[in-house]
Amino acid sequence: MSLLDPAERSRVGGQNQSELLGAPAPAPRTLLEASWRDYVFGEVWTRSGLDRRSRFLISIASATCEGARLDVLDGYIRGALTLGELTLAELREAALHFAVYGGWSRAVGLDTAVTRVANALGLPPADYSPIRDEPWDPKQRLAEGDANFKAVMVMPAPPPVTPYFEGGILNFVFGEMWMRPGLDQRARRWVTLTCVADSGATTPIRSHTYAAMASGNATLPEMQEFVLHYGIHGSWPKASVMQATVLEMGKRVANGLPFE
Amino acid sequence: MSLLDPAERSRVGGQNQSELLGAPAPAPRTLLEASWRDYVFGEVWTRSGLDRRSRFLISIASATCEGARLDVLDGYIRGALTLGELTLAELREAALHFAVYGGWSRAVGLDTAVTRVANALGLPPADYSPIRDEPWDPKQRLAEGDANFKAVMVMPAPPPVTPYFEGGILNFVFGEMWMRPGLDQRARRWVTLTCVADSGATTPIRSHTYAAMASGNATLPEMQEFVLHYGIHGSWPKASVMQATVLEMGKRVANGLPFE
Amino acid sequence: MSLLDPAERSRVGGQNQSELLGAPAPAPRTLLEASWRDYVFGEVWTRSGLDRRSRFLISIASATCEGARLDVLDGYIRGALTLGELTLAELREAALHFAVYGGWSRAVGLDTAVTRVANALGLPPADYSPIRDEPWDPKQRLAEGDANFKAVMVMPAPPPVTPYFEGGILNFVFGEMWMRPGLDQRARRWVTLTCVADSGATTPIRSHTYAAMASGNATLPEMQEFVLHYGIHGSWPKASVMQATVLEMGKRVANGLPFE
Repeated sequence: MSLLDPAERSRVGGQNQSELLGAPAPAPRTLLEASWRDYVFGEVWTRSGLDRRSRFLISIASATCEGARLDVLDGYIRGALTLGELTLAELREAALHFAVYGGWSRAVGLDTAVTRVANALGLPPADYSPIRDEPWDPKQRLAEGDANFKAVMVMPAPPPVTPYFEGGILNFVFGEMWMRPGLDQRARRWVTLTCVADSGATTPIRSHTYAAMASGNATLPEMQEFVLHYGIHGSWPKASVMQATVLEMGKRVANGLPFE
Repeated sequence: MSLLDPAERSRVGGQNQSELLGAPAPAPRTLLEASWRDYVFGEVWTRSGLDRRSRFLISIASATCEGARLDVLDGYIRGALTLGELTLAELREAALHFAVYGGWSRAVGLDTAVTRVANALGLPPADYSPIRDEPWDPKQRLAEGDANFKAVMVMPAPPPVTPYFEGGILNFVFGEMWMRPGLDQRARRWVTLTCVADSGATTPIRSHTYAAMASGNATLPEMQEFVLHYGIHGSWPKASVMQATVLEMGKRVANGLPFE
Repeated sequence: MSLLDPAERSRVGGQNQSELLGAPAPAPRTLLEASWRDYVFGEVWTRSGLDRRSRFLISIASATCEGARLDVLDGYIRGALTLGELTLAELREAALHFAVYGGWSRAVGLDTAVTRVANALGLPPADYSPIRDEPWDPKQRLAEGDANFKAVMVMPAPPPVTPYFEGGILNFVFGEMWMRPGLDQRARRWVTLTCVADSGATTPIRSHTYAAMASGNATLPEMQEFVLHYGIHGSWPKASVMQATVLEMGKRVANGLPFE
């Protein structure tokens, strides 16, 4: 397959678009629609270096962040489900994971889109484990949060000295959410990385970029590919921040240095 | 009330959810819905340390920022009105206040949601004072803006050397908006803090966090609680920026230091 | 025309609002609606220092960024089309330009709004040049992207060492998009500046503010006016970042210094 010819790029792009969105792509009626076909689906999605499941997670999380018109988000969900790249149960876990890193308010948009597409496809509801099903000892819950933080972030956890650190980060985010069985850690990374990229918040951008590579969830070349794939959906300016951070943290991890 | 048992947490969460959203909460159908009940309404909204009126203002402003699906925003507005935590007239003032700190474009979403809920509840329209009802002398208007800035921000005002400072900050934001009688200053703080947290803009985040405490509008423990409450709605990464700023500015204000 | 009298300000604001949104403005029913008439249309849009075409581009790009309720965005598009400030073909180019700097996901919101308004006005579809219609040599494509980057940004281009720089910035953003004939470079600047302001990303904010003035696309006084006009739509906190950057980069460009 050569993409050096514009007609070929359009042909491949249209084919990809139909497959990835789970429905026949209509011919572009506007310039923007032509750019989706030729550039987004013809050039970016065809690149090697990052698997399709990861690209779906990044696209879905980013479309949710941007409050995307529902047909963009619905298309990616439908494509991921019909291609078997993500199951309905995994998408439900992804919506909860998104809630933490992108806010509960916007997560409703994702969860509702998943319901709408699942209904249209005639899928039965997915079971889910309860948030927690056993009573807990507050001290033990905090200790678990602390241990999980270290495992996921590859750095020490913050002390539980504020409501945000205690009731938020330790008790819920790392105590109850990250370790849930319904979605693997690599998938959770892409949702996290997309949401922190969207947030523009420097420290989480740096710490999660470091942890993605230090944990072995993603290689440096995959992170480089992430920057481009995120950029088309989440915007070039925000991607430029990720680009600089990936280059910096890639060196840090390669040299075996701790997060700083 | 103990929240150490998951069944009890779900029960309290569901009860709170019904009360705070002003309508019976259906049983969760998805994992995300379960997390709203168990974590957002069962754990976060039940915390002491910040009054319910403040939590409503933060939730409403944040849902508007995030372009939340209308049923999240509508629910909070309905709850605040039916519980008497905010009046219709106050919500109209909050929409104008939001316009300044979150942009006029998104403020339309809030104002429209308020109209929709008020109509559904059969409330009569709220009167409002005009933006300004007396002629003004441009010099006096600027002088008033300057004085109000000092009173609200507890720091010197910028000189009117650009259109933004003169025609924006001094003439309108502090000259006409902050001092309006329909909403108290503490309520305006929560809307402001939520919007600057969402913006990610370092200087306003720092100056408004400082001013919130230096003015006596909020205590340090309330600001700590704000970080967690904002975090669930506006996202953990953006809340982490507020957490660091609250810790820094809390020390500054406790030591009687000026903003810097 | 004097705006020192509130009744006169309301009258002028209402007249402007009808003209700029291409439809008779109803009397305000809420405080927020009164502020649109009196402040946004009565004070800000009436200022000299920036032409109406530029103000439309900033307003349209910002409303798209903020996921504005459709009637805000639709109103500006209808006004720009009926006043002849922007053609349908130019709006289609602006949607593609927005995709790069604000993300493809949100760009769909703009493109769809343009279609809706054009249909309502009975306009025939606008033709557009294909993204690319001739085969290309990969090396030449990169070389063109490099040369265009220098011309547009008035600074050296990044080397093509990552997927983002090679497949994104050089091959597409500067290789295929910026130099398209359907929209002039000054118009593209306003879309770009609005999107980078919204992104909050420091480096693109600085580089595009510098380039806007260094290229001669906008004068320093126009950039000052941009800050206020952007501020009303995109929020005061984000505008404050632009204000500081415009002051810094204005001095740099006035002194003939390179970007740094």
